[in-house]
Amino acid sequence: MKVNVLLSPNNVDELYFTSKTTVVIDILRATSVIVQALNNGAKEVIPVGSIDFAMKISVNAHGGQTLLCGERNTKMIDGFDLGNSPQDYTKGLVHRKSIILFTTNGSKAIVKAKYSEKLLVASFNNLSAIAERLIDLGSDVEIVAAGSNGMFCIEDTICSGALIQIMKSLKEDIEITDAGWASLVLNDQFGSDIGKMLRESEHGKILIGNGFEEDLAFCSERDNMPIVPFYKGGEIKLSKKD
Amino acid sequence: MKVNVLLSPNNVDELYFTSKTTVVIDILRATSVIVQALNNGAKEVIPVGSIDFAMKISVNAHGGQTLLCGERNTKMIDGFDLGNSPQDYTKGLVHRKSIILFTTNGSKAIVKAKYSEKLLVASFNNLSAIAERLIDLGSDVEIVAAGSNGMFCIEDTICSGALIQIMKSLKEDIEITDAGWASLVLNDQFGSDIGKMLRESEHGKILIGNGFEEDLAFCSERDNMPIVPFYKGGEIKLSKKD
Repeated sequence: MKVNVLLSPNNVDELYFTSKTTVVIDILRATSVIVQALNNGAKEVIPVGSIDFAMKISVNAHGGQTLLCGERNTKMIDGFDLGNSPQDYTKGLVHRKSIILFTTNGSKAIVKAKYSEKLLVASFNNLSAIAERLIDLGSDVEIVAAGSNGMFCIEDTICSGALIQIMKSLKEDIEITDAGWASLVLNDQFGSDIGKMLRESEHGKILIGNGFEEDLAFCSERDNMPIVPFYKGGEIKLSKKD
Repeated sequence: MKVNVLLSPNNVDELYFTSKTTVVIDILRATSVIVQALNNGAKEVIPVGSIDFAMKISVNAHGGQTLLCGERNTKMIDGFDLGNSPQDYTKGLVHRKSIILFTTNGSKAIVKAKYSEKLLVASFNNLSAIAERLIDLGSDVEIVAAGSNGMFCIEDTICSGALIQIMKSLKEDIEITDAGWASLVLNDQFGSDIGKMLRESEHGKILIGNGFEEDLAFCSERDNMPIVPFYKGGEIKLSKKD
């Protein structure tokens, strides 16, 4: 079982993911939002690669059953129902709703990886559940650190390292690539205080500057929502073991 | 003064480099080869992005004055004069010659960064000289870790971290991005024994498997060739302070 980390989705093209098992991580904040929304009973999350496409599919959606959500460069988009702060995705708002989600990095990374045979969504909030599922699946794994506008970001890389660390604690003989090795080392160094690491990250500083400091605390919680979001046919849903 | 590291040239497009100061690093082995060739008196190194283009421009070259050099997936290319082992670029072979160089990662990364205002080439062999020049220049810096087929590789990242470390020892108030921070941490962890790190890297293992273990020792030497290779108008030449 071999684990690689893509430190930017730009490193590869869409077809790279064909027949692979993939995990997408965008800690600040898309995958944290997806985990929270599904944990609070959203029917599904539909990740989209452009605002135009989000608008287009929301027109055909059943009134009141669909929420148009997300952000562009950390800020809420005009005409959207919700931004990209996970704690806004309350049970009252999202239960049984379809969430159309556009974000600058995370939703696009998921769309890019759509040809994966299995495609999971991870954040710190559900990391151990994802690690266990990956070990059960037993196939090689590509972890996509969604990064920031195609660039490396420290928080997605450290979360990738934390995921590999849990996997290695469950199964000793996991082979890792250079990028996996680097992610593990960075997690060893900074993973003990995720909140601090997020506050010191480039993206974290921008979020604090835009008034979203609370989101950082939310996104740093470990394993408080042990669910496995699974992408299939354009939708992310809760997965039971199957 | 801000320093970023691109952990793969694929993260950006060519225009990203416009009016930037850029350093390209491909330790195994393209930039180590370039440093060695220029140090041994090569007139210039002409990096190319494809084998076809290398063939095409070599046809017009003056007989005996030009060497066609490089590799594809670590192996020498049929009809080429030299492969990609730096120690083959001896004074006897390269003095006053033009070197046309195609390699899987490094030469392509240099060609991609060609719109940079200033474009330097670094390896462990000339790292302090490059750091000093960058501090003299005083502008923001993009370090390109050439990586491996668009993927992250540990050795180019650690060399990027080592370069930042020297720069910080020369000038305290250097701002670094997340990727610079990660590179510094990885250098702190593995930079004390570069030879060992190279032997344990993915690319290093492939080179050892193909009989190129000696190259690793060559590429791990620090500051034994304190020169500054400078790209301008399609050619890399030795730069005096100018």
